[in-house]
Amino acid sequence: MRLDIITCLPELFDGPINQSIVKRAQQKGLVEIVIHNLRDYTTDKHNHVDDYAFGGGAGMVLMIEPIDKCISGLQSKNTYDEVIYLTPDGQTLNQGMANQLSLNENMILLCGHYKGVDQRVRDHFVTKEISIGDYVLSGGELAAMVLADSLIRLVPGVLNDESSALTDSFQDNLLAPPVYTRPADYKGWKVPEILTSGHEAKIEQWRHDEAVKRTQERRPDLLG
Amino acid sequence: MRLDIITCLPELFDGPINQSIVKRAQQKGLVEIVIHNLRDYTTDKHNHVDDYAFGGGAGMVLMIEPIDKCISGLQSKNTYDEVIYLTPDGQTLNQGMANQLSLNENMILLCGHYKGVDQRVRDHFVTKEISIGDYVLSGGELAAMVLADSLIRLVPGVLNDESSALTDSFQDNLLAPPVYTRPADYKGWKVPEILTSGHEAKIEQWRHDEAVKRTQERRPDLLG
Repeated sequence: MRLDIITCLPELFDGPINQSIVKRAQQKGLVEIVIHNLRDYTTDKHNHVDDYAFGGGAGMVLMIEPIDKCISGLQSKNTYDEVIYLTPDGQTLNQGMANQLSLNENMILLCGHYKGVDQRVRDHFVTKEISIGDYVLSGGELAAMVLADSLIRLVPGVLNDESSALTDSFQDNLLAPPVYTRPADYKGWKVPEILTSGHEAKIEQWRHDEAVKRTQERRPDLLG
Repeated sequence: MRLDIITCLPELFDGPINQSIVKRAQQKGLVEIVIHNLRDYTTDKHNHVDDYAFGGGAGMVLMIEPIDKCISGLQSKNTYDEVIYLTPDGQTLNQGMANQLSLNENMILLCGHYKGVDQRVRDHFVTKEISIGDYVLSGGELAAMVLADSLIRLVPGVLNDESSALTDSFQDNLLAPPVYTRPADYKGWKVPEILTSGHEAKIEQWRHDEAVKRTQERRPDLLG
C-alpha cells in the first residue's frame, strides 16, 4: 500500500509516521508513505497556499492551483484507487470502511487546513470524502494520520500476530471484553478467577459474554 | 488548560504538539501539555510496561503498577477534573462533548496501546472513557492528539479570530457551506457569482441555504 499525503504542515507528521507500527510497516516494505508539502507546488514568491474566502468571513481557504499541481503530478506517475479528502462533512469513518479501503493499493490523502480547500478541488479532484468523527480539528493532518493508522494495521503482515486485529473492537460488531495482566492481586484488586483457571473453553465463553454485556451497556446500536 | 498525557510512546507526539495551533497555544501560555513516559514509572530493570493477558490470547496489556504510580504522583501535586482513557469502547467524541470538556482546567489523558490497559486501571483510576470513532487504532496516542486538538482550539484566545470556530461544522448542527478563494476562474471552473457580488446579506443567505442543503444530503441525522 502506498499513501501520498498532501499537507501544508508536513512537520506535523514527524512523530506519527516514523514510530511504532507505521514505522515497522515501512521498514518491512509493506507500506510506503510519502508526505508532500503543498508549499513546494506554489508559484508565487511567498509560497502562499491559502487566500481569503470569496464573500468574506473568518478563516482562510486552501487554493486550488498548488493542489491541482501536486495531485496531477502524482497521477501522471502512478494510478490511484482514491483521492481522499479529510473533512468533517465527509462520510464518517468506521471499521467496515477501513477494512474496505485497506484492500486498495495507492491512495492520495488530502489534508484540509483553516476553513478547508476551495470547493472546486472537491468537485474535480476528490473521489471520496472522509470524516473521522463529529468534531472539528485544526486541520486534516491528524485525521489523515488516524485514517492511515487504521488502514496500515490491516495490511497483512504488519501486525506480528494476525489474530490480534481480528479480536479488536468492532470487527465482529462487539466491543472487546475486559483484559487483565499480572499481578493477579494488586492492592487487593483481583483479576476474575476464571482467567487464571486454565479452562480455555470457559475463558472463551466468559470473554464472549463480557463482550456482549459491554456492547449492550455501552453501544446497543452496534448489535442492530 | 493543562493536559497531562500518559503514554508508552512519547516520541509519537513530537510533531503534533510542537506545531501549528497547539504550539501557538502553548507559547501564548493558554495551554500546557506535559507528556509522561510510562517507562519512567516502571520498577523492573527492563522497564516493562506491558505483559501477557491472563487467560491467554494475542496482544499485550499495559500493567496497572506504572500507570498507578504516574497518575497517583500527578494527583498528589495537582487537582484534575477528569482522568480520561482513550479507548474504542468509550463514549464517542462529538463537538458537544468537546465544548463541555474545553471548560475544564486540568485533565489527564491516558493512552492505551496493544490490547489496552488492565481493566483495574479503568475501574479504579479512570473517570471518563472516550472514543474518537468506531475504528481501531494502534494505540490511544493519535486519539489523545485528536481530543487535545479539538479542545485546545476552543480555549478562548487560541484561535486568532474567534468567529472562525463558531462557523465550523457541527457548532450549530449544520455542516459548513462550500468555500472558494482566488482565482475566480480556474481552467474554466468558476466560483458562484453570488460570492463576488458584494451583497453581504445575500451571501449570508446563500451560505445558510448551502449549509442546510449539504446537511440534508450528507447528514440528515444532525437536523434531528
